[in-house]
Amino acid sequence: MAIGSTYKVVELVGSSSESVQQAIDGAIARAGQTIRNLDWFEVREIRGTIDGDKANWYQVKVGVGFRVDSGEDITED
Amino acid sequence: MAIGSTYKVVELVGSSSESVQQAIDGAIARAGQTIRNLDWFEVREIRGTIDGDKANWYQVKVGVGFRVDSGEDITED
Amino acid sequence: MAIGSTYKVVELVGSSSESVQQAIDGAIARAGQTIRNLDWFEVREIRGTIDGDKANWYQVKVGVGFRVDSGEDITED
Amino acid sequence: MAIGSTYKVVELVGSSSESVQQAIDGAIARAGQTIRNLDWFEVREIRGTIDGDKANWYQVKVGVGFRVDSGEDITED
Amino acid sequence: MAIGSTYKVVELVGSSSESVQQAIDGAIARAGQTIRNLDWFEVREIRGTIDGDKANWYQVKVGVGFRVDSGEDITED
Amino acid sequence: MAIGSTYKVVELVGSSSESVQQAIDGAIARAGQTIRNLDWFEVREIRGTIDGDKANWYQVKVGVGFRVDSGEDITED
Amino acid sequence: MAIGSTYKVVELVGSSSESVQQAIDGAIARAGQTIRNLDWFEVREIRGTIDGDKANWYQVKVGVGFRVDSGEDITED
Amino acid sequence: MAIGSTYKVVELVGSSSESVQQAIDGAIARAGQTIRNLDWFEVREIRGTIDGDKANWYQVKVGVGFRVDSGEDITED
Amino acid sequence: MAIGSTYKVVELVGSSSESVQQAIDGAIARAGQTIRNLDWFEVREIRGTIDGDKANWYQVKVGVGFRVDSGEDITED
Amino acid sequence: MAIGSTYKVVELVGSSSESVQQAIDGAIARAGQTIRNLDWFEVREIRGTIDGDKANWYQVKVGVGFRVDSGEDITED
Amino acid sequence: MAIGSTYKVVELVGSSSESVQQAIDGAIARAGQTIRNLDWFEVREIRGTIDGDKANWYQVKVGVGFRVDSGEDITED
Amino acid sequence: MAIGSTYKVVELVGSSSESVQQAIDGAIARAGQTIRNLDWFEVREIRGTIDGDKANWYQVKVGVGFRVDSGEDITED
Repeated sequence: MAIGSTYKVVELVGSSSESVQQAIDGAIARAGQTIRNLDWFEVREIRGTIDGDKANWYQVKVGVGFRVDSGEDITED
Repeated sequence: MAIGSTYKVVELVGSSSESVQQAIDGAIARAGQTIRNLDWFEVREIRGTIDGDKANWYQVKVGVGFRVDSGEDITED
Repeated sequence: MAIGSTYKVVELVGSSSESVQQAIDGAIARAGQTIRNLDWFEVREIRGTIDGDKANWYQVKVGVGFRVDSGEDITED
Repeated sequence: MAIGSTYKVVELVGSSSESVQQAIDGAIARAGQTIRNLDWFEVREIRGTIDGDKANWYQVKVGVGFRVDSGEDITED
Repeated sequence: MAIGSTYKVVELVGSSSESVQQAIDGAIARAGQTIRNLDWFEVREIRGTIDGDKANWYQVKVGVGFRVDSGEDITED
Repeated sequence: MAIGSTYKVVELVGSSSESVQQAIDGAIARAGQTIRNLDWFEVREIRGTIDGDKANWYQVKVGVGFRVDSGEDITED
Repeated sequence: MAIGSTYKVVELVGSSSESVQQAIDGAIARAGQTIRNLDWFEVREIRGTIDGDKANWYQVKVGVGFRVDSGEDITED
Repeated sequence: MAIGSTYKVVELVGSSSESVQQAIDGAIARAGQTIRNLDWFEVREIRGTIDGDKANWYQVKVGVGFRVDSGEDITED
Repeated sequence: MAIGSTYKVVELVGSSSESVQQAIDGAIARAGQTIRNLDWFEVREIRGTIDGDKANWYQVKVGVGFRVDSGEDITED
Repeated sequence: MAIGSTYKVVELVGSSSESVQQAIDGAIARAGQTIRNLDWFEVREIRGTIDGDKANWYQVKVGVGFRVDSGEDITED
Repeated sequence: MAIGSTYKVVELVGSSSESVQQAIDGAIARAGQTIRNLDWFEVREIRGTIDGDKANWYQVKVGVGFRVDSGEDITED
Repeated sequence: MAIGSTYKVVELVGSSSESVQQAIDGAIARAGQTIRNLDWFEVREIRGTIDGDKANWYQVKVGVGFRVDSGEDITED
């Protein structure tokens, strides 16, 4: 069929006190709790907060893409 | 009234095995299945996958904007 | 705990016949009607429509970020 | 008809000693003095000059779009 | 001669109810009605309006470049 | 003389509980307390924090440019 | 294995006298003549040349990605 | 008065067979032939054409800003 | 009070022979040696140098934001 | 001598099932297998694929720069 | 014929101890030593290294485009 | 040692009545008057002012990077 699946991208910010890597993984894991058919992610921003002379939270903005099935309510993602 | 309607923009990726044009239209048509009051779209990215020496899927990322009515649950879009 | 909260960002366009400032505030107020735990906003685009020689609607695209609790259905935002 | 109107966008910088808002409005009002069929505007840059410890001029670069009628000389806008 | 021609770029938005391609072509055709020496174009934005679940207008912002001859009034383009 | 003045740009974030406009002005006023020869500003980012359904702090990132005199220690700005 | 394949992206400009779509396809087809393992493409720029009041060449800059096998000379792509 | 002058920015491409510098100057000089009250310029793109192993034309896209007087027909610039 | 604190952002490049993560942390730690009231950071660029077939230095450009107290000499940050 | 070395930049995408860091290192290591005189790298995009609720491949697009010697065939890199 | 030539763009960094202009020219000249059919260039980045209080190397990143003939091995450019 | 030096980047605007090249050099020379360990520069913006039909000041915004030694007060740069 000529028209293929449609995907939706939601923008999440994962946070971690340990590393940029863990903040990315946390956002994806959280998405996986309630979204099916997760397909890809795109890192959009890396920032964080500082306490004293250390980053206490790494915050990574991630676009997470997933396939939306045909009957599914797209407004609910 | 001074404050007007609020609109929401969802980010979709339409896909087509035929053309960039059809991938755009597919994303909008899919949005129209479950979202009311669709108003405008913005093309944000054009890419795709290749099989052999041909694009087999054109993938177009599209921001789709729609008016949210006052009592409506905005989290559901 | 090393992994912190996850936040979600929705993209809204507020509109006002009066000012850019009011369009921003309108988008945030609308978000507050149905979204809990609103945390921050980011202005992404300022535009509008003109009638005669005056802007009749100021339209400001705003990313609105909020914390998503652990059990919450993320697809509903 | 399949092909619709063509619009032209001119880039103006409005200035005001009072506010960013007024600089936007000034650019649009000036456009309205000699351009018909103004349709929309897009804010492209916000800057200004400082005198002492105060902004004395707010300068806002605005793209102003208007419909060009068919017989009209497009070079004159 | 060391200094060559000067070119001017005007920003147009073509619109079509049929396709992105036709919106591009419409903008260029309209430019050609009143501007001589058209040389190149650059697509800057692809967007449009939606009616129901279909794009009713594709709108493509195009920079159109043309050579300005030496005696020509550049303010008229 | 062929070489003119050098200017330095510092990046400040002004904040206000009232408006974007006041956040810009606050950043410039603060710069004026300790920097001489302020010349221009450039708005680089508009964001803020939300409490409930209202922005409680508008935060505007502003580049502030000023002339540095010849004998002046440039590291101190 | 933890480290996966490496991909290379080459930047091509396809051209067509007919459409943007055909220019994209032409670039991919040309890549397929001498590059194996083509995987994806990304549209980076859409422009072209004008003759009279018509585009005579649509030119689309496309990044084309392909997997590079382990022993393969990467400098040759 | 609170509202100040309005400025218009036209986009020109200067060309030179000698240098980037001369292409910038050429665009400004050409603007000065027919536009009064030129005020500032912004370099937006530096490119050119190659013949053999040498650039034969340096092409620099420059935004040129000028003040538009109150009674002046803004469509003619 | 309506006007809140002003923050300053300095741009640092941290470097590490081990990882991107450590380069970020190094820049923040260095900032903390002489700057009080550090508040947040923004990653702006990730690059580095290569020796043989390995990165020997990861270099991360980071904007580091901190609150400037009212009497403090802002030129000294 | 006034003219120095020329460098070439190739765009690679490294992939790893473990971390963003390892995907960067993998791309550089792969480049080192067949390219001499590697000098620097620039991270251009961080993304990846998701399987279930986990990233299964981190994919990092990296520009890798290297010096090209004078007699060397530049088309082969 | 509807499908036209395909072009390839390679990214080079020219360097010069004298000027930005010479660094551009050096990159193009080096490209011309081994690449046929050079067509255009695009300046992408201007930077350099400093020794004491002077730039000792100007480094300009340039995209250089050239036509690839039909039978030619595209992986070798 | 795994953590390497930290660098700071200050943003300067050099100006020259003669050329873009001289404006770059002027900014670097001025930086060298009071900053030690200058290492690299990045051109961020090229603009200027016009008097009549000529640029009277070329203004180039340059990021200038330098190494900050360990005991050094980073706030003073």
